[in-house]
Amino acid sequence: MTDAPHADSPAGDPAFAGAVADLLGLLAYAELVAFFRLADDAELAPSLSDKGELAGLAAVEYSHYQRLRERLVESGVDPEEAMRPFVGALDAWHARTKPASWLESLVKAYVGDGLAADFYRQVAELADPRTRELVAGVLSEDGRAEFVAGRVRAAVTDDPKLAGRLSLWARRLVGEALNQAQSVAAQRPELATLLITEGAEADSTGADLAAVSKVFGRLTDAHTARLEAMGLSS
Amino acid sequence: MTDAPHADSPAGDPAFAGAVADLLGLLAYAELVAFFRLADDAELAPSLSDKGELAGLAAVEYSHYQRLRERLVESGVDPEEAMRPFVGALDAWHARTKPASWLESLVKAYVGDGLAADFYRQVAELADPRTRELVAGVLSEDGRAEFVAGRVRAAVTDDPKLAGRLSLWARRLVGEALNQAQSVAAQRPELATLLITEGAEADSTGADLAAVSKVFGRLTDAHTARLEAMGLSS
Repeated sequence: MTDAPHADSPAGDPAFAGAVADLLGLLAYAELVAFFRLADDAELAPSLSDKGELAGLAAVEYSHYQRLRERLVESGVDPEEAMRPFVGALDAWHARTKPASWLESLVKAYVGDGLAADFYRQVAELADPRTRELVAGVLSEDGRAEFVAGRVRAAVTDDPKLAGRLSLWARRLVGEALNQAQSVAAQRPELATLLITEGAEADSTGADLAAVSKVFGRLTDAHTARLEAMGLSS
Repeated sequence: MTDAPHADSPAGDPAFAGAVADLLGLLAYAELVAFFRLADDAELAPSLSDKGELAGLAAVEYSHYQRLRERLVESGVDPEEAMRPFVGALDAWHARTKPASWLESLVKAYVGDGLAADFYRQVAELADPRTRELVAGVLSEDGRAEFVAGRVRAAVTDDPKLAGRLSLWARRLVGEALNQAQSVAAQRPELATLLITEGAEADSTGADLAAVSKVFGRLTDAHTARLEAMGLSS
């Protein structure tokens, strides 16, 4: 079953439909891989309860994956095909950002979740009503992420000299994400175009790097707000 | 909040209450560690979809952990304290039964889930009404496990020479589980007593090894039925 095109978006356009499928595939794989990496990182947890908490975050990522997957199937898209183009970039991001401590894994969970939320919001602005419903559901589960930010903030308040190291770590997380995003944008021009809300500025080859930078600038601003929520600085 | 004692069980007896807490703690840690091991095993999955399926099984284990944990808290028991005595035995079981292939990981998921279900049923026979409600909820999610059995059966039908190797693997899984169970029973005599429904046969030191063997015999019979469900033999 496919949806009627959303009145405000060029959903009849095959390039647009492909770009929405790309975005859902990117988010689906991001959630799936986040599930596995969080499960791995839980080895760093200082207690069984903390281990359980991180497992809980991972289970939420899985439920998001499942909903994105269902949405792709419903739209007639093979979820595996939709995810495949992004496996390399997301795996590379995780390989380059392996947490060395429990606090690093919490900062990574919060920053990673936040970046994903920024992308979800972008989807919500552009896609069809059913996809927007899905996004609203996913974003309503942010309470858990706020709990993570609180844990980091408490640790930094207890031991202020942690702040510098964790701030550097958060900067590395977002820097590596922007690197990977740039290579994805170069390979998937329609996706890059979709991510530029001021879409008129970019042609469909996605070569308008100034517009892409503007989007990255917005992501970076949101990241700064998240750093503050954790008691860190940019 | 604590429950009124169940009319048919000696719930007023502190040894009994301790043994129920033990059993819930054992199951809680079993579910938590199953979550992590399934997430690890998913690395063996032949496709992204299969990886997603195994992540889904792991997420179900997490939701069971969460419910057991809540039940312990509700009964005034610290979940971490309740789980701790079983960490060694369950970790040892997983360390000795690391799957070397995707099919081995599926057989392990099915056998492990089945053994847990046998323990849940034992809890249901003995514990208070709220705990029995919890168990009924957990056991109603067995459909997913049947799906796993079907996958193994299909693989064995396709390639019958897999059956011998996987049967041996399943035997090793249950043999190692019985080894660990025996050492847990020796350390937790009240728990061992609780697990013997014909409780009158055993004194509270749990030293009645004949009765323990009878319980193990029941577990082994249930295991044989599960082997048949996977197209394997004992």
